[in-house]
Amino acid sequence: MVTRLLVAQSGGCTAVINSTLVGVVDAARTQDGIDAIYGAHFGVRGVLGDDLVDLGRQSQATLALVRRTPSAALGSARYKLSDDECAQALDALARRHIGIFVLIGGNDSADTAQRLGRLAAERGQDLRVVAVPKTIDNDLPETDHCPGFGSAARFLAQGTVDAGRDSAAMRHWDPVKVVEVMGRNAGWLAAATALGAPEERDAPHLIYVPERPFDLHTFLGDVHHTYQRLGYCVAVVTETVRDAQGRPVGGIDKTAPVDAFGHPVIAGTAAALCRAVEAALGLKARFDKPGTMQRMSMALVSETDWQEAYEVGRAAVRAAAAGQSGVMVTLERISGSPYRCTTGLVPVERVANVQRLLPAEYLHPTRPWVSDAFLAYARPLLGGPLLKYGRLEETGSP
Amino acid sequence: MVTRLLVAQSGGCTAVINSTLVGVVDAARTQDGIDAIYGAHFGVRGVLGDDLVDLGRQSQATLALVRRTPSAALGSARYKLSDDECAQALDALARRHIGIFVLIGGNDSADTAQRLGRLAAERGQDLRVVAVPKTIDNDLPETDHCPGFGSAARFLAQGTVDAGRDSAAMRHWDPVKVVEVMGRNAGWLAAATALGAPEERDAPHLIYVPERPFDLHTFLGDVHHTYQRLGYCVAVVTETVRDAQGRPVGGIDKTAPVDAFGHPVIAGTAAALCRAVEAALGLKARFDKPGTMQRMSMALVSETDWQEAYEVGRAAVRAAAAGQSGVMVTLERISGSPYRCTTGLVPVERVANVQRLLPAEYLHPTRPWVSDAFLAYARPLLGGPLLKYGRLEETGSP
Repeated sequence: MVTRLLVAQSGGCTAVINSTLVGVVDAARTQDGIDAIYGAHFGVRGVLGDDLVDLGRQSQATLALVRRTPSAALGSARYKLSDDECAQALDALARRHIGIFVLIGGNDSADTAQRLGRLAAERGQDLRVVAVPKTIDNDLPETDHCPGFGSAARFLAQGTVDAGRDSAAMRHWDPVKVVEVMGRNAGWLAAATALGAPEERDAPHLIYVPERPFDLHTFLGDVHHTYQRLGYCVAVVTETVRDAQGRPVGGIDKTAPVDAFGHPVIAGTAAALCRAVEAALGLKARFDKPGTMQRMSMALVSETDWQEAYEVGRAAVRAAAAGQSGVMVTLERISGSPYRCTTGLVPVERVANVQRLLPAEYLHPTRPWVSDAFLAYARPLLGGPLLKYGRLEETGSP
Repeated sequence: MVTRLLVAQSGGCTAVINSTLVGVVDAARTQDGIDAIYGAHFGVRGVLGDDLVDLGRQSQATLALVRRTPSAALGSARYKLSDDECAQALDALARRHIGIFVLIGGNDSADTAQRLGRLAAERGQDLRVVAVPKTIDNDLPETDHCPGFGSAARFLAQGTVDAGRDSAAMRHWDPVKVVEVMGRNAGWLAAATALGAPEERDAPHLIYVPERPFDLHTFLGDVHHTYQRLGYCVAVVTETVRDAQGRPVGGIDKTAPVDAFGHPVIAGTAAALCRAVEAALGLKARFDKPGTMQRMSMALVSETDWQEAYEVGRAAVRAAAAGQSGVMVTLERISGSPYRCTTGLVPVERVANVQRLLPAEYLHPTRPWVSDAFLAYARPLLGGPLLKYGRLEETGSP
């Protein structure tokens, strides 16, 4: 039985999602039983609108370059299919004689993959649906970690070291800095910035994640104590931290719509915290918000992440060719030191709409910090050490 | 005559200000007539407080590492000496038998160097004062460009390419992006992001600099027009753009929601512009504000900038040893293609408190964009091409 494969990219982009795409294409090209490889533009939008590109006809030079290009080369989307649209999508796939649909994405994409796979089975349509994990948030269950996370973590860990060096030198001018990082409901990325602080004096000094209720009074006390101890303070905060009543610290942006999956848009956490520091402590505070640059940096890509992203793409094709459907590819850590990982498969219903938050054992029991277990977990994902920086030797007064 | 040299770092930090510091130390170590090399902690604060470090006793390994470390290894300051403090500083230098004072900084530091040099001459104190340029803002007159600019420009040009790839893929979700960049009163850094856009479809599409009054209505029209043409839009804006009446754009955000602590969130220029885009055009907009990361990135350093920063440090020592005082080291472009630069000297009073804004010939006459002359000026300062990214080949519907 020969069939056609369609691949799409979905959700927020990453630095390595195209490595996954090229992994799919490379594996499909040499896989018996696949005679055409198509890509859908802008996720399921391209499926519905029959907006496709022939990936089997891309040159090796193009694919090599795309594999080193951040963002989604096919275009991405946040689009929740209605039940009618699920049926329409399956009709569109049938018209194109697509027997394998590979969807690269996060929680919401796993949900889409699950619904399409179930409906296809109900209809008796010959379609294998395989999801491939992708999210800088690292919040998918059943996988050791998610492609995209390691590279964003590397950018942020290095960027926080850099921002911390700035604050250390400028402590007499603006001694407090808040670095705002992404994370819908999970603090994996914020936590990863701890990897840049091998010594207690190094930045960041404080890390606030959405897994723990944010208390402004405690935060101000933490900043004050750090400032008194070191003369400056760098705090990392996930953009979505909330207080004990569940209210976003940055305020919900009421002028903006909730997104297609019902997630509210949050206005400005770091900005709010800087104002609070200045008002309550009388310390000048500023914030860095690298925004989408944190998920797009090929200059700071984790080579481990980049390679694993490729392998999960290849594994998806192997799984589909072997008859699997309704599954998501996972990464399974075989060994922590030396770090070794392989791919696995999990039923997609165990992933769809489930978020994996930071477990308690990855956080410090009392301080706004991480545990050694988290550091051991996250360090290899950065793909190598950060840049090595120096300090002048203390000579005493000459 | 044998004397001692003191060096200090001042103003906002850069990725290469320590390369200049090590240039000073390396040159002073081999310079006849200098028998001690001290550094002052936190700029003129360290001079006043006799808070010094012995740079002559630093190991080569330490200096090599510091040279590759961003921020100011001595610590920096923004501190304007009173007249009394100028006299106190000279007294402190005399007590330490300092005959050469090298101050690495920007406009304000040149002013400090000028005042100390003049007062020393009036008092008959044997002190040579040499200023060394350093500012990511690139706003010092009399020099072709300023060390620190090329590296920040490289980070921002690459970061804007990256952020633009994100927006291109996510155009159906949040099609408008504003990248907020630094610049006290000059738009050199914002302008440099144009180097990442070799084709008209590439980001950034619009660049707003403080040299031109910012008109919100025109901005919204520009964004709307770009969105209609390309399906998304990336605008770069200097944080300090002002309207025709001189009011900061970041201060006119009246529709911001209230945060959890009851304060309206005013995150600055880019946040205000995003809100305006959403309200007026109904397009979802987001912003990236890399903040201090843009001036601290050794991962994206311009090797040209890094080497030139070293050379201006060495040139300062040579100038002082040759008896020069009241001068600032400059960079003089000998040739544009191939790019070649050498160092020069200029009286510091021609630099102190003078800002070099983007000249009209470096801006596009009608569009929010730069001129070809600016691109030719700025390109070699980035120290090499940006990362090469790819796109899928257009195959037509398969």
